[in-house]
Amino acid sequence: MSTDDKLPRGFQAAGVTCGIKASGNPDLGLFVSTRPAIAAGVFTRNRVAGAPVIVSRERVPSASIRGVVINSGNSNACTGERGITDARQMTALVAERIGAQEEDVLVCSTGVIGRFLPLEKIESGIRDAADRLGKDPQHLLQAARAIMTTDTVEKIVTRTCEIEGITVTLTGICKGAAMIAPNMATMLGLIMTDALLPHDSVTDMLRTAVNLSFNNISVEGHTSTSDTVLLLANGAAGISCGSDHSLERFQSTLNEVCTELAKKIIRDAEGAGHFVTVNVQGLPTETDARLIAKAVCESPLVKTAVTGNDPNWGRIVSAAGYAGVPFQEQDLSLTLNGVVIYEAGRPAPFDEAALSTSMKSGTVTIDLQFRLGKAQVTYWTCDLTAEYIRLNADYTT
Amino acid sequence: MSTDDKLPRGFQAAGVTCGIKASGNPDLGLFVSTRPAIAAGVFTRNRVAGAPVIVSRERVPSASIRGVVINSGNSNACTGERGITDARQMTALVAERIGAQEEDVLVCSTGVIGRFLPLEKIESGIRDAADRLGKDPQHLLQAARAIMTTDTVEKIVTRTCEIEGITVTLTGICKGAAMIAPNMATMLGLIMTDALLPHDSVTDMLRTAVNLSFNNISVEGHTSTSDTVLLLANGAAGISCGSDHSLERFQSTLNEVCTELAKKIIRDAEGAGHFVTVNVQGLPTETDARLIAKAVCESPLVKTAVTGNDPNWGRIVSAAGYAGVPFQEQDLSLTLNGVVIYEAGRPAPFDEAALSTSMKSGTVTIDLQFRLGKAQVTYWTCDLTAEYIRLNADYTT
Repeated sequence: MSTDDKLPRGFQAAGVTCGIKASGNPDLGLFVSTRPAIAAGVFTRNRVAGAPVIVSRERVPSASIRGVVINSGNSNACTGERGITDARQMTALVAERIGAQEEDVLVCSTGVIGRFLPLEKIESGIRDAADRLGKDPQHLLQAARAIMTTDTVEKIVTRTCEIEGITVTLTGICKGAAMIAPNMATMLGLIMTDALLPHDSVTDMLRTAVNLSFNNISVEGHTSTSDTVLLLANGAAGISCGSDHSLERFQSTLNEVCTELAKKIIRDAEGAGHFVTVNVQGLPTETDARLIAKAVCESPLVKTAVTGNDPNWGRIVSAAGYAGVPFQEQDLSLTLNGVVIYEAGRPAPFDEAALSTSMKSGTVTIDLQFRLGKAQVTYWTCDLTAEYIRLNADYTT
Repeated sequence: MSTDDKLPRGFQAAGVTCGIKASGNPDLGLFVSTRPAIAAGVFTRNRVAGAPVIVSRERVPSASIRGVVINSGNSNACTGERGITDARQMTALVAERIGAQEEDVLVCSTGVIGRFLPLEKIESGIRDAADRLGKDPQHLLQAARAIMTTDTVEKIVTRTCEIEGITVTLTGICKGAAMIAPNMATMLGLIMTDALLPHDSVTDMLRTAVNLSFNNISVEGHTSTSDTVLLLANGAAGISCGSDHSLERFQSTLNEVCTELAKKIIRDAEGAGHFVTVNVQGLPTETDARLIAKAVCESPLVKTAVTGNDPNWGRIVSAAGYAGVPFQEQDLSLTLNGVVIYEAGRPAPFDEAALSTSMKSGTVTIDLQFRLGKAQVTYWTCDLTAEYIRLNADYTT
């Protein structure tokens, strides 16, 4: 958490330990707006969606959201009708405690799939959290920690922008750290702002930001059942983003908050030792560029080459080749950490040892340059390490 | 190699060491038919295809193939025009040595991508191999070993079948052991038979077998630039598979040879500790079933759960959910090593410790049963281990 991280005006938060996690780590976060907030959400496209996704999806967009409750340690996914009843019960209890309607509370859950929620523990956690709500940075920090699963650090980004002379604040939180391959939605994220946004454009604004950020990251290509990003705008700053100019300024700040959060997920990905940026340029459509970026980011052979600081570029070129996008080899050039190693379909001579040394910095940038159009995209991913295997070979038991 | 493994009549083989591999292991195999053979091939659909793929693809189907030369240690992929010239030169040299036309020799290369072939070494290797050609099981074994990369065992399958009272032999060889996710083609494989096959159906027969075998395996989802399977039928058994009945019998034996070879690749996959069978049943189309099988097989989270003998079934269900196939949770039931753990969209109670113990046998069977149609498919994969990471984090350097 940076010293600048804080809640926007009109928001309160709390994070508590209610015993869902065997580790005894915090496992329930509560976020409340003191006034009704305009809210939008984007959710997983996994056909197997968690119960909280099903419940929250029904409730946004909305102009009257008052709270978001998030538990970690259990995703309440693949739990049938009982899971949905449990998720609704969580929102009802929050509503009762903060004096709101059940439909004005959203819910998210993250953790192991396929287990029923320990509802008694969660109910006592919600009561406890409601009693501890506050607006200080410390409250935000505790709430951000309570939504972590295998994350090693909390993920908070705060940005401000000036709109018609008034400073508005955007504060986002999110969690990783595996089962990360968002598909037109993402992992758990919540962005709060004290700006007032037009009800009819809030979902589009959130989608725009997510398509530049959370949708462009992948840890291992496994799209979660629980991916959710929520945006709550409560207007407590006393200014409405009504004009095109102020909407653009807000959108740009929102994009920045989401992109910084997405990068935080990659930096803290399970077992990761390298932060990898993949730029794909010069394709006919953005869809083409995304397919290639995704194939490169999700290839275990590309990832393990990065793990070993090994400029084994044939793995990158061959991943692009199976992405499903038509091209000829001579249409493609490849640059790794600024060094051209494959040019218009032919190997280019390069200093292998020097390039390997530059990869040891932990930051790797892969540029795939095509000459087939103007579409481009940037993705972020990490390497694949023995530590990832260790963490995931024994997660539920 | 089993004691039954042998070359079909009219085939000779040799395997030699010519210095492509720094390890000093055998790296050049030569297979020759003493008479012109009917030949078919299926090849990678990677847009970045190795030079040998480009050259061999032009030469099949054919009724006059005399030889196949295969080197390991260098894939001659991503090597531009020079790579194609080098691949053609390999076939020209073989043709000269065995008294054939250049166009009647096929070529395959496997190993690191993006390096030019050491052509002098290969030329001396081809001369050496041509001098050592023989028809004994020992010649077959040496040739099968010469095409290995990180494989730890040679992969040979011999089967016979009776056609109109005459025994015909099918002998297949192949290599793995990573960059395995064949797409309508496969890794390197060669099936030789002394049966005579109709020229106009030989490609279809090979495709049928590959779609039941090599196309249904995945080590890590990375489709190679060099995938090739060749079928050579030289008729030396003195019988032609002309009737529907004999074609069916031959097809069934060919399917068996390809399936056994494919399973051998998975059993010897890099770092693998578990052999995993994924059966997907009850979908509207085979394409649907394949998408789901592939998503499950290629999820690092499913793989690492298997590594840890952990019946963490939410990872399997959620992988099915992002495969791109429409279904409702209640359409799906899941069985792991014969134990029902998810039934019509709800968790089923099961003995977690006992199921984990059964996974420790090293054999895991995942059955995904849908109720949306009659299409089904079986895939084979392996787990993902720290040893895979070690092997691939430092491969070229």
